[in-house]
Amino acid sequence: MTGNTFGSLFRVATFGESHGPAIGCVVDGVPPGIELDEEDIQVYLDRRRPGQSRHTSQRREPDRVRILSGVFEGRTTGAPIGLLIVNEDARSKDYGAIKDLFRPGHADYTYHAKYGVRDYRGGGRSSARETATRVAAGAIARKILGPSATVRGALVQMGPHPVDRDRWDWNEVERNPFWCPDAVAAKTWEDFLDDVRKAGSSTGGVVEVVASGVPAGLGAPVFDRLDADIAKALISIPAAKGVEIGAGFAAVSMSGPEHNDEMRMRDGAVTFLSNNAGGVLGGISSGQDIVARLAIKPTSSVSTPQRTVNVHGEDVQVVTTGRHDPCVAIRGVPVAEAMLACVLADHLLRHKAQCG
Amino acid sequence: MTGNTFGSLFRVATFGESHGPAIGCVVDGVPPGIELDEEDIQVYLDRRRPGQSRHTSQRREPDRVRILSGVFEGRTTGAPIGLLIVNEDARSKDYGAIKDLFRPGHADYTYHAKYGVRDYRGGGRSSARETATRVAAGAIARKILGPSATVRGALVQMGPHPVDRDRWDWNEVERNPFWCPDAVAAKTWEDFLDDVRKAGSSTGGVVEVVASGVPAGLGAPVFDRLDADIAKALISIPAAKGVEIGAGFAAVSMSGPEHNDEMRMRDGAVTFLSNNAGGVLGGISSGQDIVARLAIKPTSSVSTPQRTVNVHGEDVQVVTTGRHDPCVAIRGVPVAEAMLACVLADHLLRHKAQCG
Amino acid sequence: MTGNTFGSLFRVATFGESHGPAIGCVVDGVPPGIELDEEDIQVYLDRRRPGQSRHTSQRREPDRVRILSGVFEGRTTGAPIGLLIVNEDARSKDYGAIKDLFRPGHADYTYHAKYGVRDYRGGGRSSARETATRVAAGAIARKILGPSATVRGALVQMGPHPVDRDRWDWNEVERNPFWCPDAVAAKTWEDFLDDVRKAGSSTGGVVEVVASGVPAGLGAPVFDRLDADIAKALISIPAAKGVEIGAGFAAVSMSGPEHNDEMRMRDGAVTFLSNNAGGVLGGISSGQDIVARLAIKPTSSVSTPQRTVNVHGEDVQVVTTGRHDPCVAIRGVPVAEAMLACVLADHLLRHKAQCG
Amino acid sequence: MTGNTFGSLFRVATFGESHGPAIGCVVDGVPPGIELDEEDIQVYLDRRRPGQSRHTSQRREPDRVRILSGVFEGRTTGAPIGLLIVNEDARSKDYGAIKDLFRPGHADYTYHAKYGVRDYRGGGRSSARETATRVAAGAIARKILGPSATVRGALVQMGPHPVDRDRWDWNEVERNPFWCPDAVAAKTWEDFLDDVRKAGSSTGGVVEVVASGVPAGLGAPVFDRLDADIAKALISIPAAKGVEIGAGFAAVSMSGPEHNDEMRMRDGAVTFLSNNAGGVLGGISSGQDIVARLAIKPTSSVSTPQRTVNVHGEDVQVVTTGRHDPCVAIRGVPVAEAMLACVLADHLLRHKAQCG
Repeated sequence: MTGNTFGSLFRVATFGESHGPAIGCVVDGVPPGIELDEEDIQVYLDRRRPGQSRHTSQRREPDRVRILSGVFEGRTTGAPIGLLIVNEDARSKDYGAIKDLFRPGHADYTYHAKYGVRDYRGGGRSSARETATRVAAGAIARKILGPSATVRGALVQMGPHPVDRDRWDWNEVERNPFWCPDAVAAKTWEDFLDDVRKAGSSTGGVVEVVASGVPAGLGAPVFDRLDADIAKALISIPAAKGVEIGAGFAAVSMSGPEHNDEMRMRDGAVTFLSNNAGGVLGGISSGQDIVARLAIKPTSSVSTPQRTVNVHGEDVQVVTTGRHDPCVAIRGVPVAEAMLACVLADHLLRHKAQCG
Repeated sequence: MTGNTFGSLFRVATFGESHGPAIGCVVDGVPPGIELDEEDIQVYLDRRRPGQSRHTSQRREPDRVRILSGVFEGRTTGAPIGLLIVNEDARSKDYGAIKDLFRPGHADYTYHAKYGVRDYRGGGRSSARETATRVAAGAIARKILGPSATVRGALVQMGPHPVDRDRWDWNEVERNPFWCPDAVAAKTWEDFLDDVRKAGSSTGGVVEVVASGVPAGLGAPVFDRLDADIAKALISIPAAKGVEIGAGFAAVSMSGPEHNDEMRMRDGAVTFLSNNAGGVLGGISSGQDIVARLAIKPTSSVSTPQRTVNVHGEDVQVVTTGRHDPCVAIRGVPVAEAMLACVLADHLLRHKAQCG
Repeated sequence: MTGNTFGSLFRVATFGESHGPAIGCVVDGVPPGIELDEEDIQVYLDRRRPGQSRHTSQRREPDRVRILSGVFEGRTTGAPIGLLIVNEDARSKDYGAIKDLFRPGHADYTYHAKYGVRDYRGGGRSSARETATRVAAGAIARKILGPSATVRGALVQMGPHPVDRDRWDWNEVERNPFWCPDAVAAKTWEDFLDDVRKAGSSTGGVVEVVASGVPAGLGAPVFDRLDADIAKALISIPAAKGVEIGAGFAAVSMSGPEHNDEMRMRDGAVTFLSNNAGGVLGGISSGQDIVARLAIKPTSSVSTPQRTVNVHGEDVQVVTTGRHDPCVAIRGVPVAEAMLACVLADHLLRHKAQCG
Repeated sequence: MTGNTFGSLFRVATFGESHGPAIGCVVDGVPPGIELDEEDIQVYLDRRRPGQSRHTSQRREPDRVRILSGVFEGRTTGAPIGLLIVNEDARSKDYGAIKDLFRPGHADYTYHAKYGVRDYRGGGRSSARETATRVAAGAIARKILGPSATVRGALVQMGPHPVDRDRWDWNEVERNPFWCPDAVAAKTWEDFLDDVRKAGSSTGGVVEVVASGVPAGLGAPVFDRLDADIAKALISIPAAKGVEIGAGFAAVSMSGPEHNDEMRMRDGAVTFLSNNAGGVLGGISSGQDIVARLAIKPTSSVSTPQRTVNVHGEDVQVVTTGRHDPCVAIRGVPVAEAMLACVLADHLLRHKAQCG
């Protein structure tokens, strides 16, 4: 209702700005008795952390999470879990150059239009720094889903360069700095991204997230379809411009017989012969892999001079400097995984409520 | 929370099945004093109504809406508006052939998996018949947005055939049975769709919706971004598989300088020099046109025999007969317009609450 | 969020005015597979129905409920249940006398202050007529609670005349027109109420509702305590001015040792030796009877002339005529039962979600 | 939805246990541009703080609040406000004596029944320590209401000893350790409470809260009436057993003409001649003072031995030791004020959304 809260039963209320003292969230609705410690969350935060290769922002944040409540003797109690991440590398640099102008592609102008005031330091609330709290919440969501469900992601396109799906290898995803499932593409991207960075430019990417082992039956009719909630959760990630489920936009050019996933009994279980649906039919999970793709625009901060205006209504030029990711889509992978996990955990609890 | 309700402040609770006595909704949160009568709603329902050309379902529904509450002496009172649409052409045909099996592409299997029971007549709750209540609510949403805002839509691709944007003419949209803005494409589509229908097949489409005259400042940070809520609302439309905002998936291959919409002062107002953002930056409207596109899959009901299983766990074949749209994307246009209007009305009220 | 909707998982969206064409509601979140037909609801509506004795309003409403959706072949499907009750005795009388003035004790002034416009016919949305939809929803809530739980109510005080609790007999409640559990008090009330009615005056009452067979564990910490939600639900009933749980206001004068309900094991189960808590500790049900009492003010409509003002800012006098209950607390009994059932059903589903 | 969150548009998500590292909350939906610093909140926390007289718990908590986000250059930005209060006097004492048993009057048994696990240190999540976050949020709520509205409270009864309303003096409230508006009663209470404390017993109290300067029109019809939300908010305070609005339970014995608040024009404004309604008619504020009273039970922790059972299903005795308030109603006064302020702020924003 107020923008900064995710979910209906698995509920995450977040706060924090890029350059404030800390960011954090309150995770409520977690079932009691689940084993949880800070390390369970930290391992995912470490995946999102900046400064781990030359391809991401050089901001140095340890991103250490602290559990303030809701866990007792190593298990969740059912009480809300307060999580805190102190901002350590919020440099008090001089913001004189940008505090009064609206950087193209950023939220500067729209925040100004909406609120009248804004914390211009590092983008304030509109900074992607808030995604650390998404990842932290996602780690708890995974615990709710349990070990039989797996949520993982990969970058399947960088700029104009897609992966070759015939070379897809989930193990490869952990081996390169791009979460790329195709070793050959990863090599191409490395050179491409070096060029982009050196040019002071930026590029976009497509993130694919896949949830396996999700039971059939999650989701709701009409407005809160599982795929609708997934779409919302993914598009809410900073810089996202599009989302698709299963065959997605490619479904448009298919015929019905081609697109429909036929079914057969296999070993006593209903089995689909294809997965154009992406694991969701009528807004409800089918038990197949849930597959979604997310388009991330090129990073808005570039060193090319751009035309813009300032708060005084004057035409000016802006050159963004600072420690930015040339391709934010890379760090979008763990964030997208987290959001998918959060949606599934929320719908799992909702399903238990009505049909459990 | 319970799936069948839209919105937070502009709130629409819907009900009804394809072959039940009626469908309807309760629209709450509407500001008082707005002029509203049944005709204001009927005009939009008439656009969505089936059976108006050979290209849509031949089900004959007058779709007459009745206002049961919330309007007094021609104006809204602030009380909830109850809307009722009686189902008149819910033929009591023999469902013996499909009641026990799961039609591919439909929600039959997933509803069965979730609820154990289901109303199999015409798809029950999962039928696109529910979209009539969306359109009715959308008509009220437009009233809340007021006359300075315009929400309109068009079909921009049918199967593999896109429109030529150089021939775009909003007036043309009202002249052909496809809401097609390109007269040439409309002609192509006519032949294409006749072939599809005669083959007992189906095809998909891309719907584009545009909202003009929306003030800057609507939306919220982080999770309830305006574009995230638009994405959810559009993907919640039956048969939707993808959504994009502004440049959408094409943004991935652009560079930052190319994608960023630069700004200049024009006649004392901030003006964007392009609209790759689709009218939303950081989740908040910029005052530019809000532009979203929606991928609709081919209609699941086809007369080609398809492999499936039944509730008894047996392999069977299914041929769907009945009065189906060969391209549901066509009737998706007024529905997508309605959903966009609903999202904007909801965020307008939310904005007034916090920043008004 | 928008006032006219109850609950979080058991969700009831209501609409309708006293003199409009119909009232109704959408009940969403109901688990599938529950046997339900119109008669299950009608039996409770008949208890609330006006005009059944000389002690209640002489408005003649059959209050026939119609189920429009969500039930198939005698069972709930998990889809929203649309309920419709047509207003049949909404006499088109002349409202000229009251349309422009604010009746003391009524919502006329505050609705005018809030909305600017109002449906003055019979109180419009602020009429107690809306409580019929509460009772209908409550009948469904009882089905969710199942046969092991019982929710019942009684009038325990009329005006200054309380019942004698030593004479409490639940069977007696069904035998007199007051839902009075004390046959002697019922006799006293009969004479008292005749006098009140003949004097053109009105009186208040205290309703007690008791839920037995509710499992321990329903409720939530801090804000959504079970007793807090019960308090809200009961105070939301028209004319309510106070609510208490268990010992209630009497607890103030007790000492801790006196008030605390001690526990012993009895037949292998935890047993409380008293029930000052009213079945709720720390906001969570204990398995004991849940007991709440509700103070209902005297009916605002009286035939005594009263001073008030009109919409033109003039001092005027008002005499309310019409078919009013001299003691609305009587018909408050089935309404309070319904609200208690709704709160319990909602928390049962919430409990299943997190701890089920 | 998940218990630990208050409000719909003014939204407070709380966390923290009595003996964990910290408690805190996220306050979202706050309008931008409001002056706010830590001292604005601290002043109210200091009123609730324990250990300020011999009449309250001797736990020594500085209760220093830290603002972590949402405020920039002394003003709110519209982003969520993260508040943190470190627990400093959470003594690591030996809980062996109580960790396995259920203290009568406490939430030990019900939390155990609901969650299976519980943090037994100092009551964990069910401790009244959480009320510090309510008070912090209430301070922000007051800022939203603005300087023309005043929310204040008093203790109007301790055990069997009520105040004499003829001696009511708001200034006196700040002069004694009981928030008592009657200097004579305060003297009586001092002796009474000393006796209670020395006896190892406890006593209850009635808190009255009054909001002045609240505009007419706040509230909503049917379920979210202003008085219903006030009732819920007040009953959600630990140890609350009853609530009444305006004349409350006394209204039951009044006649309609007696109870109805008549109106006259005075200096061009509608003026009520009495306030039995407590400032709310039909669930909507009338512009009069909003008056509510809250019954608080005697503190559950007493040194008298009491019968109870333990988690192993054995009958045992318990004597509660520790630093407890003999009358928690005293410290309930600033908490009740805070909750009333929160409800009013929430409804103010809701009113602006629909009718602003």
